[in-house]
Amino acid sequence: MTMTGLSAALDDFIAALGPDRVIADAEALPEWRDPFQHESWDDFAASAIVMPETVEEIQEVVRIAGRHGIPLWTHSTGRNNGYGGPAPRVKGSVIVSLRNMNKVLEINEELGYAVVEPGVRWFDLYEAIQAQKARLMISVADLGWGSVIGNTLDHGITYMPYGVDFGLPCGMEVVLADGSLLRTGMGAMENNPSWHVYRRGLGPTPDQLFMQSNFGIVTKMGVWLMPYPEVYMPLWLRVWRDDDLGPVIDILRKLMLDGTIRMVPQVMNAVLLGAVFSKRDLWHDGDGPMPEEAIERMARELEIGRWCMRFALYVDEAVVDHRYEKIRRAFAAIEGAEVWGAKHAPEEIPSLEHPAERIQGGVPNLEWNQMTGWYGGDAGGHIGFSPAAPLVGRHALELRDLMRGMLGEAGLDYIAGMLPVSARSFVHITMVIFDTANEAQARSAYDVSKRLVVEAGKRGYGEYRAHLDFMDLAADQYAWNDHAYLRFCETIKDALDPQGILSPGKQGIWPRSMRGDAA
Amino acid sequence: MTMTGLSAALDDFIAALGPDRVIADAEALPEWRDPFQHESWDDFAASAIVMPETVEEIQEVVRIAGRHGIPLWTHSTGRNNGYGGPAPRVKGSVIVSLRNMNKVLEINEELGYAVVEPGVRWFDLYEAIQAQKARLMISVADLGWGSVIGNTLDHGITYMPYGVDFGLPCGMEVVLADGSLLRTGMGAMENNPSWHVYRRGLGPTPDQLFMQSNFGIVTKMGVWLMPYPEVYMPLWLRVWRDDDLGPVIDILRKLMLDGTIRMVPQVMNAVLLGAVFSKRDLWHDGDGPMPEEAIERMARELEIGRWCMRFALYVDEAVVDHRYEKIRRAFAAIEGAEVWGAKHAPEEIPSLEHPAERIQGGVPNLEWNQMTGWYGGDAGGHIGFSPAAPLVGRHALELRDLMRGMLGEAGLDYIAGMLPVSARSFVHITMVIFDTANEAQARSAYDVSKRLVVEAGKRGYGEYRAHLDFMDLAADQYAWNDHAYLRFCETIKDALDPQGILSPGKQGIWPRSMRGDAA
Repeated sequence: MTMTGLSAALDDFIAALGPDRVIADAEALPEWRDPFQHESWDDFAASAIVMPETVEEIQEVVRIAGRHGIPLWTHSTGRNNGYGGPAPRVKGSVIVSLRNMNKVLEINEELGYAVVEPGVRWFDLYEAIQAQKARLMISVADLGWGSVIGNTLDHGITYMPYGVDFGLPCGMEVVLADGSLLRTGMGAMENNPSWHVYRRGLGPTPDQLFMQSNFGIVTKMGVWLMPYPEVYMPLWLRVWRDDDLGPVIDILRKLMLDGTIRMVPQVMNAVLLGAVFSKRDLWHDGDGPMPEEAIERMARELEIGRWCMRFALYVDEAVVDHRYEKIRRAFAAIEGAEVWGAKHAPEEIPSLEHPAERIQGGVPNLEWNQMTGWYGGDAGGHIGFSPAAPLVGRHALELRDLMRGMLGEAGLDYIAGMLPVSARSFVHITMVIFDTANEAQARSAYDVSKRLVVEAGKRGYGEYRAHLDFMDLAADQYAWNDHAYLRFCETIKDALDPQGILSPGKQGIWPRSMRGDAA
Repeated sequence: MTMTGLSAALDDFIAALGPDRVIADAEALPEWRDPFQHESWDDFAASAIVMPETVEEIQEVVRIAGRHGIPLWTHSTGRNNGYGGPAPRVKGSVIVSLRNMNKVLEINEELGYAVVEPGVRWFDLYEAIQAQKARLMISVADLGWGSVIGNTLDHGITYMPYGVDFGLPCGMEVVLADGSLLRTGMGAMENNPSWHVYRRGLGPTPDQLFMQSNFGIVTKMGVWLMPYPEVYMPLWLRVWRDDDLGPVIDILRKLMLDGTIRMVPQVMNAVLLGAVFSKRDLWHDGDGPMPEEAIERMARELEIGRWCMRFALYVDEAVVDHRYEKIRRAFAAIEGAEVWGAKHAPEEIPSLEHPAERIQGGVPNLEWNQMTGWYGGDAGGHIGFSPAAPLVGRHALELRDLMRGMLGEAGLDYIAGMLPVSARSFVHITMVIFDTANEAQARSAYDVSKRLVVEAGKRGYGEYRAHLDFMDLAADQYAWNDHAYLRFCETIKDALDPQGILSPGKQGIWPRSMRGDAA
């Protein structure tokens, strides 16, 4: 890319979208940075932002980029801050921000689905459902400002029953690198009413090829919505010893395998919940990781236990009662374990006090974001380091020990949530929290995250999602058979996007022109 | 492909596999035909069959085919007889039969999964689980001789809770057209224990790209197994009027959306069940479709109703009792509807009398295959014509009327099973049954199936799977945006298999050298 090329492309973008929707002014650009990078770093700075509002405008943007050889970087709302936020992998890229492409196109109450554009946030879809008075719930992520499509495409986790195994999406529309338009599944047939109800089509199903990749820009997606259950019962489990984590995970696996618990729980350590509801200096004021004694005190005083699990039931009242008793009996095998919760009608969920009980009930909010302020000040940031593992106690303990040890050596707290995305595996979300205004601490956070990628990889634990700053490193761990998987992705990339204009470097996938093996 | 090329390739196949595993002798070839084509037809005749037994041998077979430009056609066991059986799309192809590659590589009772090779049949996996005394169940297809991998790759339907939304597979190993080996998901990382428990990896997930396609040869796959439930309760619903189908489907949708029924039911018309348990000439001996009066008489005398649904519950006894009552109340809205069933311990399933109760309980058998003998004689055959539709009564009625009308005009009976693969959509399996020894009837069956593909397509109903003989026609219905989906598949095909040696024409996907647009 040359400056002349960029300048000519900007002229074309302005001709296509109008001057208000092409942002290239130095004062506006900082809003589009990785919000948690230190202010002196500029590895991931965009040169401009374009804001198309229709599919045709996206197609035109892609064609312009192709003509001028400009790398684009697409986000939906760009709120995945733990992984780099709105910023592009390649410095100088033009961001295609779909924040203003935010229409809820359909809500079908009979069949329980919605069709959304990429700029639709959890907040927006929730409100649209309420406005239509549809008795449907949407499985939301922890933070309501995220995009339904953006979160889904990045393998983001949601918590209701349809969050299990990433069960929300059904049927996509995609702009390809040549500006052409594809519909997947039954959408490949004109007027097919099954586009958003049947998950496949005739022939191979490409939907997951457009997730965590740079093969296309998704412009529409179906999202399955759950009918109101008779009863919603948010539940809590609290245990008091750090090593109780092992039996918690093993008992949970059995309860998920037999269908007693069918949603995505969060097993959180004391520091994670402590960070949501308090500040660090209340408990400890020194340098280095929080000492055991301070964690123990916080766990007692906040009544959060050493490990706490949020989860819920969504079924008929008779079944809720049976399952609640079964769950209580199962966890009673752990000395001192407590399980509690209360039954609610779905209509009561918006007024529940605890933000997690609203999140699990499909009512989006932003309260979980408090945790980034753990170190005080307004400049809290976090990096997500998140390997996947089998849902077995010994794996949970091994990951805990590895991460706590390495974070501790870096002087950082171990802040952990384990999220079983199905009955068989969990994602260990490690929130590497730091003060972004403290450059030394920020650097240390990034550095230890990279070391964690490598050390976890050596032990067979791969990241489920990777931060901009170590996408290549994370991808490099998937090295079986001389990187057969990466080479496969590169073959697809070169075929679909020979010029390499769509999000180069996303998840470690580079177009031929930017690879080491470039001719 | 030239005869000289074929002959040279056969020499190389023999050098690689030995003479016993390369079959090219004219007397042996008929076993590998489409079993239901009339004996005088030879559109889909293979020139030879190779039978590799290891991954390395498959890699070598692919490399040999590449050197000589020989089209291959892979099957696992080749038992999908309603769609063409073991036969190749392109006459003269060399079949890669994986029947002898039939090892169960792992059964993991803690995490509930198995890892199998392509030749492993439902029978084999069931037996391996029993031999290990693992308290796990495998969701099986109607006929136990099918391959677990083959059925999964062709979007085949199974019936237990994990059959919902095709929930069996997790993690694959694939030989690509250049002979290289790929592992998907967490298998792309050396020694990653999550390969068969976490459904994705880092980056795009290609697994579904290898289903209903010709992009690779799957050599290993993880399959999720369900722990024994406390109670298995197979259930039956019977209704007495043909138009009861509408409310049956609408009530069923609600019971599936709220999770009361969580498996894949089969809603069958009287002629389907009549064909499983009797012969046509007991009820009607004339030409043309069975008259209403004869269907009505059969429905009464066999006590199968005009529509009958097989389904089941797999949960704790307390939940089974609650759900059974809820189901009975829901269907009581239909006059004369009856619901019944009995509770069993999982250990009792192998001794249940009704084959459907064993199929839904994960115990494979072949009894459902009786239906192809409907017209008498030993030469019964069938074609599967199977569009998908939203799980709504009016769609079920529209498809019934369309198919019954057109089949009737062709002088054939309307034999229908509607299979909701999730709470939102169903596949309408139409068994076009005929006497393969009667060439005129066989021709009529193929012809009407092709007309059905087009007429259903015009109304927005696309096939979920297509017979060899009309794969192109079925794919041609997916024509949105000037066949954008097919062009996308062709781009992938050309990138992954530039010589076009893997299963050319499968599901309508042709390599460049065999397309109309060939340079």
